[in-house]
This record gives sequence, C-alpha cells and structure tokens, in this order.
Amino acid sequence: MASRTRKVFLGTFIYSKSREELSYLVNTAVCVDESGKIAAVREGCDRAKVEAEVLPELGWSLEEVEVRACEEGQFFFPGFVDTHIHAPQYPNVGIFGKTTLMDWLSTYTFPMEAKLAAVDQARRVYTAVIRRMISHGTTSAAIHAARGVESTNLLADLCLSLGLRALVGRVCMDEKRTCPDFYCDESPEDSVLHTRACIAHVQEIDPGFEMVKPVITPRFAPSCTAAALGLLGELRKETGLPVQTHISENAGEMALVAELFPDVKDYATVYDVHGLLGPDTILAHAVHLSEDEAALIAERGAKVSHCPSSNSCLTSGHARVRWLWDRGVEVGLGTDMSGGYSPSVLENARQASLVSRHVAVGIPDGPEKERAKLTVEEVLYLATRGGARVMGLGERVGAFEVGMEFDAVLVGLGLVGEDGVAVGEGNVDVFGWETWEEKIAKWLFNGDDRNCRAVWVRGTLVHERA
Amino acid sequence: MASRTRKVFLGTFIYSKSREELSYLVNTAVCVDESGKIAAVREGCDRAKVEAEVLPELGWSLEEVEVRACEEGQFFFPGFVDTHIHAPQYPNVGIFGKTTLMDWLSTYTFPMEAKLAAVDQARRVYTAVIRRMISHGTTSAAIHAARGVESTNLLADLCLSLGLRALVGRVCMDEKRTCPDFYCDESPEDSVLHTRACIAHVQEIDPGFEMVKPVITPRFAPSCTAAALGLLGELRKETGLPVQTHISENAGEMALVAELFPDVKDYATVYDVHGLLGPDTILAHAVHLSEDEAALIAERGAKVSHCPSSNSCLTSGHARVRWLWDRGVEVGLGTDMSGGYSPSVLENARQASLVSRHVAVGIPDGPEKERAKLTVEEVLYLATRGGARVMGLGERVGAFEVGMEFDAVLVGLGLVGEDGVAVGEGNVDVFGWETWEEKIAKWLFNGDDRNCRAVWVRGTLVHERA
Repeated sequence: MASRTRKVFLGTFIYSKSREELSYLVNTAVCVDESGKIAAVREGCDRAKVEAEVLPELGWSLEEVEVRACEEGQFFFPGFVDTHIHAPQYPNVGIFGKTTLMDWLSTYTFPMEAKLAAVDQARRVYTAVIRRMISHGTTSAAIHAARGVESTNLLADLCLSLGLRALVGRVCMDEKRTCPDFYCDESPEDSVLHTRACIAHVQEIDPGFEMVKPVITPRFAPSCTAAALGLLGELRKETGLPVQTHISENAGEMALVAELFPDVKDYATVYDVHGLLGPDTILAHAVHLSEDEAALIAERGAKVSHCPSSNSCLTSGHARVRWLWDRGVEVGLGTDMSGGYSPSVLENARQASLVSRHVAVGIPDGPEKERAKLTVEEVLYLATRGGARVMGLGERVGAFEVGMEFDAVLVGLGLVGEDGVAVGEGNVDVFGWETWEEKIAKWLFNGDDRNCRAVWVRGTLVHERA
Repeated sequence: MASRTRKVFLGTFIYSKSREELSYLVNTAVCVDESGKIAAVREGCDRAKVEAEVLPELGWSLEEVEVRACEEGQFFFPGFVDTHIHAPQYPNVGIFGKTTLMDWLSTYTFPMEAKLAAVDQARRVYTAVIRRMISHGTTSAAIHAARGVESTNLLADLCLSLGLRALVGRVCMDEKRTCPDFYCDESPEDSVLHTRACIAHVQEIDPGFEMVKPVITPRFAPSCTAAALGLLGELRKETGLPVQTHISENAGEMALVAELFPDVKDYATVYDVHGLLGPDTILAHAVHLSEDEAALIAERGAKVSHCPSSNSCLTSGHARVRWLWDRGVEVGLGTDMSGGYSPSVLENARQASLVSRHVAVGIPDGPEKERAKLTVEEVLYLATRGGARVMGLGERVGAFEVGMEFDAVLVGLGLVGEDGVAVGEGNVDVFGWETWEEKIAKWLFNGDDRNCRAVWVRGTLVHERA
C-alpha cells in the first residue's frame, strides 16, 4: 500500500444504515486519518467549513490534508465485499456449458486450477482477476486459492501490493474417492502442513493481518476426508483463524456428502462435528439447507455467502435470503467466479434481486411471496455491510461511520443532455428528474466498472479511471 | 442513412447456421453492394485474393470499394434484434421496486409515457434510447411508442436518421375501465385514426418500408375494447401490416382478460377472434400459455418475443423457450425496457440462458430438465436469427449469406498480457488458449457495449467506438 496522508472527502455519501435503509448524507465531509480510519463525519459541511471548523477540531493542518470532492452527481459508496471467489478459476468465467456442480468441477475447474501450479501462470491470472475486482469496486474479498502453496502465497502478495483487503485460503482436498489424481493432497497431514505454510507466509508479509489474513479452507466436505476435516478443525482452534468452505449447493453434492459421511446427521453437522462451524466460518451457497441446518448455523453464528449468479448458471437452485435472515443467519454476496461469470459484486447484487424474485415465483400468493423479494436497499446491504459482517469486518468496513476504515468507491453516473446525447462513461443514463433512490436503482441495474470512478482501501487510492 | 458505397469486410464471421450451431468462417471476405446486400461470401480469402479474384468476378473495381478488416481477435457477428421494447419507458430502466405488471403500469409506466406528449422530451428520450440500443449492437427493433401521434412520428424519424431498422407502433389503449384518464384513447375509432396517421407518416419518410415500417399496436387485450381490437384487426387485413402486442405475462393480467372478455375461450383467442393473430404478429412474454394457446399461435404462425430480464424483474414467471420451440413457435428476444432494465440484447441472451435454468430448476430430474436449458448457441440464435424471423426479416438479416443485407457488429474482446494487465476495452478477458466456442461464451457472459467496436445496418456504418 502507498504511503498514507490525512484526507478529507467531500460530497454525498450513501451507505446501508440497516438492511432496509440507506443513509444519504449530502454536503458532507468525511475525514480520514493517516491509518485509513474515519476520524470525523460532518453533515452540512463544505470546504470552507472543513477548513474553519473541522480541521481545527481534529488538530489537523490544512497543508497536510488531501481533499477530494465529488463532482456534480457523484457520490461515495462503501467498497463492495465479495465473500466467495475462486481466483484460479478466473480464466473460465462464462464457460460452463450445461454442466451442474460435480461435472463442472471435473470438466472445467480442477484442470484449470491445476494449471496454476505454474507460478508464472498464477501471477498472470491472479494479477488479472485482482485488477478486475478492484476496478468493479471490490475492496474486500474472501478468496479460495488453488492447492499450491507457492501460488497461494503469491496471491496473498498480490492482494497486499494491489491493495485488496482479503482472506486468502489454500484449498484443502485429500479425498481420493472424489478428487482427481492430478489435483489431490497426499494425506490429511499434507493438507494441514500446506495450510500452515500459507499461514506462516501471511504472518510474514502482514504480521497484524491488517490487510490480508489466512483462512482455513477445506474445499468442501465431499473433497475432504474426515481426518483432514478434524485436523483443520484443530488448526482453527489453535490459531483462531476463520474458515471458508461450501455447503448445500447442489443435489448431487448433497447425496455425495450423505454417502461419504453416513453416520453424520446432515451436511452442516459434518462441519460442526469437526470443529469447523463458528462465528468466523463462511459457508458458500446454502441453497438447500434444512430447518435444522439453518438453526445449527445460526446457533454457531456461522455466516452464508449467497452466490446468485453461480447458482443460476450451474442450475443449483434458488437460495432463500429472506428465509436465512428470518432464521438469524447473516448473509453476504459472493461472485463465486467461475461458477458465477462476473467479477462484479454489483452485478451479483442485481442477480440477488432477480433470484429473490425467482424464489417468489415458487411461493403461493400471499405475504411470504412478497417478502421473499429483496429491495434495492437490501441487495446493496448484502453487497457491502452484510458482506463485511460475513468476513468478520463488520466493525471495520461497510459504512461511513467514525472509527471505521475508509473503503470506498466514488460513483459517477451518466447524464443525458437536452439533445439526448449522454455525457459520462457507462450505461446509467440520468435525466435529471430522478430522486436519489431512483438514481441508486438505476445504478444497481445498469451500472458497471465504468461508474466506479475511483476506489480506496483503508484510505489509500487503489484504482482510478482516467 | 449515409450515402452508400460497395464494401468488403475481411476476417472472421460468426453467425447462427441453425438454432443449435454457429458457423465460424475464418479468413473470409464478405462483399456488400451499394444497396447494403451481401453480394459474395468467400472463405479462405485474404485481401490479395479479394483484389485478384473476387472483385473481378463481381465486376467491382478496387478504387470504388471500401475495405474493413478485423484486427487480431476481432470478429463480425450479425446485428442484434430486439423484438420488444418500449422506447418512451427508457428513463425508468431499473426503477420498478417490488411491483408486478399491473401496479408497475400504473405506478411507473403510464405517467412516464404520458410525459412524452411533450415532443421536446420525446426527442430527448428517443434519441438517448436509440443511441444506446445501437451502441449495444442492436440493428433491428420492434418498438412500442407512446400514445401520441407526433411523438411516434418523431420516433420513426429518429430511427431512420440514426440508422436503426425498426417496426414503430403507436400504442392503442381505449378501455376506460383499465386505462387512466390522463392516458387513454377517446374511442376505438380514435385508436385507428391515430394509427393511420402514423402509418401515413412512415409511408412518407420511407415509402418502401425499407428501414422503418409501421406496426399495428394494441397495447394488450386488457387496455383495448373489443371494438378497438376488431377495428385494428380490420386495419391489419386492409394494410397487411404487422401487429405487436403482449400476451400472458402475469397472473393478474390473465385474470383481467378473463373478466373483460368472459365469452372468449382464452387470451390468445381474444387476439384471434379480432383478426390480430397471423404470421406477422409479435406476442411479447407468453410466460403462462396453455397448450391450446400455443397450438393456436403455432397454427397462425404468430411469433413470440421472450423477455427474460423483464419477466424476472416483474416476478412474472419463467417463460419456456424449449416448450415453445417444441410446439413450433418461433421465438426472439426482447429487452422490454423498462420492464427489463437493459438496452442490450446480449444481456438478454445471457438472461435467457439463466431463465432457462430457472425453468429447469422447476422440472424433475430427467431429460426434460436437461433439455429446458438453452445453450450459448441457442440464446445467440434467439438474439439474431430468431429475432429476425420474429420481426419478419428472416430472409433479410440475421446471418452472413449471399442476398441478405449486411447488419453486423464488429466484436473486439480484451486480451490479458503476460503481466496480467488486460489490453482492450471492456470486461471480456481472453488469455489466448481459448477455442472460438469458449471466446463466444466469455463474450456472451461478460460482454457489453465496449465490445461492440462498430455497427453496420444495411452496409452503412451507424456506430463506431473511438
């Protein structure tokens, strides 16, 4: 990360006050200290007032402060949080044919991940995917790497140098019955040994885990032996590190779990009995959970990464976000590349809106059908504050509040002139009569990376469009 | 349209040979005559061979010919066909809240359409939407205008001057029980009179209907009296003009049709008994058709515009494209802005792929579940050749074949360098090892207007990215 200075951001700030509501702070100043933390948020404040009142209160001098003001129509939004993404699969985005999970893994995914044992190839792919993620406004991500220690460590290095806040996990997979010969850990001990090597590396490059943190990553129950799951559970207890894995994505996968773990009650319990289910556990998908599983997950405080684009592409089914919320489970969004095709969390917020309507299609007329649908505000919560909570960053990022770190996107929309010609990059056409709520809806549905004019992580500029 | 010259296009040409298969013509020359028609398609042909062999055969001299060659990695694809779009609703894209069809119409749609009675406003909106459509590679569109004659005529003028091939229809809606006071035709005769005025205007500006053609447009059965439908059916018989309308989008709408037309067997039959169902009829949505209705539509040769984005946004349900095809109904894609949020037919092809998977989720395991899913090839067929057939343009556009007119997009994808930095605009990252089929899949899922480097309609360049 670049060297830090104190900064003042001026203009409109929009963020999730709650699941249901966005805060719109106009004419506001957000002051960010040299560590990237928000030191003050002052509404009804212009540049003059910042200079006359706010800086003196903070004891900051004007000379040492960088000021960045929104242009007309622009606003700051919290950086997006991608709670589930497989970096080595990036070259496969959009390529999935008619497969579903298990044949998708063997046809496309394992061969691609195995390819990245070549570190040069890994560098190329990881650089490309991190750059894309940041350009779409992603500032934090929980990332599944591949099996290789060297390439996983490289991924952590690149997150740090390119400025992406990340959980980085080397995938563990030692079950000979389900993993291909060319892509399988030798033993349960091997899974743990390699994971420890990756943890040690991150401890070296980011000792306080300020930006990058290791995450214990059993790929998913069907690819791990009970012995490996148990050892990884012990490692979790020993290190206090978070865990990420998959759950109940697809019917074939669930049948396989029942077959491989015949004595365990259900899929969620497989993780629980091996000590892998806790408040820092991220479970991707959770499409087909039973009531008992949802109750167990809520009790443990484990979190869910909803991956709407992936679930639709791989015909996995329709995850029920409202249903999960009703049961007390925190939810964020995952791009799940390359099960999902897009590096954009905004695109996945859009897809979450659509998938919630597909859930509603399957519910008889009545209040539950209506409730199943997610609002614009709710999917943007999933994309930011919800995701931050899923990643264990709920106190640190996802909103513009004093004490939080400044992870933000400066969003600019297009404006249609009187002659019908749009000014500004991208596909969001504002005519001028829209409310802020309507502009946000337009951005959600037609926005892309062109609307992410600049991106900051911990107060440091990590991306800017020319 | 600009003045015409003979042109030779060189490089890779990809188009739907059939529903199931794309043709990949590499090292190919496509020669386009001064009227925009394809005069020759020659595979295994470079610039030298064009000069030495093809031009002499055609009797064309080198001096009079413009040559446009693909750059490395680029390809020509047929222009997209949008078989259902409401131009006056464009400012509302993305704004739909939790509404479904009937409350969406009253809350957002009728007020916006009524606003465009102001011709200056209409000019601004129509210019913006046509420019967006073309920039996304749309070369033909079946457009619902608003109620106003003057604004509808302006829309036809703009399609002609900006170079969009279009069916332009003034919406007819005279049913006082369902249309708001501020937005309703005075009488059935009024609906026809205004439609005739719009037909007369197009006859003046494009006498042969070469680029723009009027289309008889009863909004949908619930907004028209039986008298108006009957008169519009007679107008169809008299003029031989095409018809566009909506069918079976939503449960509330279907109930209303049953209530308003209690003596008619079903929704499709309402159109049929009024003489509105024929080979030139475009029926948007068709989500909830019965077997009898599908059989009637197939028998009449009427076509369906599938609007996946809109159907998902408005929780209308999952239209079954395979089911329609199995029953002999031709299908194209509609963006249905602003029920759908995107001006892009490519985005709707992507959504058609996803929606077909949502259809599959609802089908028990077995071959029908698998068949329900649409392939990359099939959704691109819907977006081009299928759409052309729906619009009555099947002999004229949608492929690169001798005798057809040259409506095309030059597509460019991005290339990831060895350093992981992508070269080229847009989000499609090619690593270099992909097959053509894989590159097409990547484009389908992550492509946007940035990949549409240039667009031609009838051989005339109508859009080019700097």
